[in-house]
Amino acid sequence: MKKILTAALLTLSFQLAAQSNYEREIKSIYDEALTNGKCYATLEYLCKNIGNRLSGSEQAEKAVQYMFSKMKSYNFDTVYLQPVMVPHWVRGAKEEAFIAKGFEKFDVRICALGGSVNTPEKGLDAEVIEVKSLAELKKLGREKIQGKIVFFNRPMDPTIINTGVAYGKAADQRGSGPSEAARYGAVGAVVRSLTHANDDYPHTGSTHYNDSFPKIPACAISTKGADALSNLIKLQTPSKVRMYMKLNCKTLPDVQSYNVIAEIEGNEKPNEIILVGGHLDSWDVGEGAHDDGAGCVQSIEALRIIKQLGYKPKRTLRAVLFMNEENGNRGGIEYARVAAIDKSITHIAAIESDLGGFTPRIFSVDDDNIIPYLKNWEKYFVSYGIEHFQKGWGGVDIGPLKAQGTKLIGYLPDTQRYFDYHHSEADTFDKVNKRELELGAASMSALLWLLSEEGINK
Amino acid sequence: MKKILTAALLTLSFQLAAQSNYEREIKSIYDEALTNGKCYATLEYLCKNIGNRLSGSEQAEKAVQYMFSKMKSYNFDTVYLQPVMVPHWVRGAKEEAFIAKGFEKFDVRICALGGSVNTPEKGLDAEVIEVKSLAELKKLGREKIQGKIVFFNRPMDPTIINTGVAYGKAADQRGSGPSEAARYGAVGAVVRSLTHANDDYPHTGSTHYNDSFPKIPACAISTKGADALSNLIKLQTPSKVRMYMKLNCKTLPDVQSYNVIAEIEGNEKPNEIILVGGHLDSWDVGEGAHDDGAGCVQSIEALRIIKQLGYKPKRTLRAVLFMNEENGNRGGIEYARVAAIDKSITHIAAIESDLGGFTPRIFSVDDDNIIPYLKNWEKYFVSYGIEHFQKGWGGVDIGPLKAQGTKLIGYLPDTQRYFDYHHSEADTFDKVNKRELELGAASMSALLWLLSEEGINK
Repeated sequence: MKKILTAALLTLSFQLAAQSNYEREIKSIYDEALTNGKCYATLEYLCKNIGNRLSGSEQAEKAVQYMFSKMKSYNFDTVYLQPVMVPHWVRGAKEEAFIAKGFEKFDVRICALGGSVNTPEKGLDAEVIEVKSLAELKKLGREKIQGKIVFFNRPMDPTIINTGVAYGKAADQRGSGPSEAARYGAVGAVVRSLTHANDDYPHTGSTHYNDSFPKIPACAISTKGADALSNLIKLQTPSKVRMYMKLNCKTLPDVQSYNVIAEIEGNEKPNEIILVGGHLDSWDVGEGAHDDGAGCVQSIEALRIIKQLGYKPKRTLRAVLFMNEENGNRGGIEYARVAAIDKSITHIAAIESDLGGFTPRIFSVDDDNIIPYLKNWEKYFVSYGIEHFQKGWGGVDIGPLKAQGTKLIGYLPDTQRYFDYHHSEADTFDKVNKRELELGAASMSALLWLLSEEGINK
Repeated sequence: MKKILTAALLTLSFQLAAQSNYEREIKSIYDEALTNGKCYATLEYLCKNIGNRLSGSEQAEKAVQYMFSKMKSYNFDTVYLQPVMVPHWVRGAKEEAFIAKGFEKFDVRICALGGSVNTPEKGLDAEVIEVKSLAELKKLGREKIQGKIVFFNRPMDPTIINTGVAYGKAADQRGSGPSEAARYGAVGAVVRSLTHANDDYPHTGSTHYNDSFPKIPACAISTKGADALSNLIKLQTPSKVRMYMKLNCKTLPDVQSYNVIAEIEGNEKPNEIILVGGHLDSWDVGEGAHDDGAGCVQSIEALRIIKQLGYKPKRTLRAVLFMNEENGNRGGIEYARVAAIDKSITHIAAIESDLGGFTPRIFSVDDDNIIPYLKNWEKYFVSYGIEHFQKGWGGVDIGPLKAQGTKLIGYLPDTQRYFDYHHSEADTFDKVNKRELELGAASMSALLWLLSEEGINK
């Protein structure tokens, strides 16, 4: 009996010691990020000296080289480039557009949706019909839609607190709207920018053509522009509202690009990998600061901190900067394909940061089953602003790893500001707060550390 | 037995019904704030058409009139001005300063601390000695300090997650530093700006002279300026570092001003008051957007929402825009003095928003004893971003009510960005996010509503 009691007490005291070690180690991780952090300066260079970096562009290539050299400078165990062929869509000359009704006519700010075809050389001019949903489009049918430009104008729902959820509920207009409009004979599509901000930035993003229907030119209009257009349509006068748009975009042949990868080898289970990542490409407007320069510099920083502190992870830690999240996810798909070939390694878990460099709030966990296990770690994070491990999305880039059994975890910062900047000229470095960015990097680093040491023993 | 059971079930079902009512009502409060919110537009006017508004200034008077008329426009039951005499310190012409060592000399950006005396007409020029703390100052003593300008250069501690706490730990340099320097014969004081931001904005704030010592001119220097000055001092050359400063500030006679007050009368216990407030004055730099225009417009909005939804509060709800928080707290003191006279009324609880219009996180509660009771309400708030009711500070303006037994509650949004702007030219309207401001207003309104209905039955 005494022996059992002693053994039990010993186990308990080991557990308590481990817990208090983690508390100390995690405090050191945050301290390093906040006193000696490198990610803010790296992001500044990426945004200000390279700028936006759509897949296939010269800047994307520069970003690959810069981040590769940055990783090299930290002397990680391995740093390498993983080749991947990516699409090469280009915007061409700046878009032009106006809306007109009777004698009224005014210019509006638009930008082509990613993947859109161009208009004819002389532009496209047609009557505009406003809809709020794909269901409404269907109800109107070919009779009302044929020959027109369809204007999708359902705002993101402001009463949904998580703006990512509100975005998801409005995004069908951009993703499927143009092809659905073409189904009924539309000649063009214009989509209200997916943002709560009331300003004059058009927000781009991919549209996905359905090959069964003609590919029609498709653009985003700013929220102010959308409201102006809608108000013009509401005016009860006999003349019709027309819109003119000229898009100069085109799709060029695929281009060779790279995922950028760095690794700290595990010293007990080197074949078990814990991944942290973001995507290095961005849309071709703004500077890709929050989307997703932030996630990239945080991922490197998460590894750098662990190395700097001299921690020796049991499992292998890998930072991956994926290419081509925005218009194809070729990097994510290729990474998972290559990972699946090598049967000797297993990707235990993958963490992605792709919702901006804002103040920490949540780790969202793709697999319900491991949430109870991860919730035991909330105690390590709550004083740093991470309040919950809860059911949610992992990330686009790490998504293809799910088929291999990898547990996917999204870093979810506060969501209120993200879509104000997302996919627009407003996504610039000055919108990123240094400490918020660093707190995110430290949160990812701390979770990486726990996963390295403990695995996922659900 | 059956009767008891029935009674128990009835009680339980009433409780559940009340809970589900509160959930619905609180959802309506947030929905109103996010779809029909008025506080952002009010703040824009306050910042852009009136601007900063130090006590005693013409703009402070304009702000009183504007907010009074804004409250009137919402048809609250009572709207009135409460007179209060306030200090009238003026900055005068813009400050000038340079630092010099040997042949090196460069201009630096400073601003007089609030309440500072001016320098002589021709400015003040003296050798600079750097200290990191009041303890270090004491150790150096009169021998080292006499005749010099003392440079207080202890940064806020970046490893403290709550920046308000880090601010509190560094603020003795500004509040007491100049007088403590004068104790040892210093002729001037320059204080590192209390911010984590690395930029060139000097951040002002009050200094408090100790009447036992000479009043010496005191200013803040930007963090970039402070680093430059410190580096210059560190250079191991024989020539001494001097600083020149010219401050043109002075204190004029007190001025009549006002607290601005609006009320919705309670329909069951009208003599029990639940207060919500912020302060209408600001420093004389920037636009007083986060400090504390945000708290003022949120306080009005908290009442407006309840009125707009047709809720009939049991207790009286009162929004108070206090005058003179920044350099005297005369408004807060006068409000409490007047409140204490009328023995027929009781201030049950007071909520203050004075930490910026950022995304919601916490209600901080001054009195430990009521925290267990309030924690029962966390369930209503967690999905809106308020995660905790926890021990903490109420607010400067509501502080004097504590002597009457009023329970003090601070609205504590995320703290990472606040001190980047606080008391500086950077505190402008564009730094405020509309949804974050609205979520704060709704959180305050929801708490006001719960307090009105339930009181504080600890």
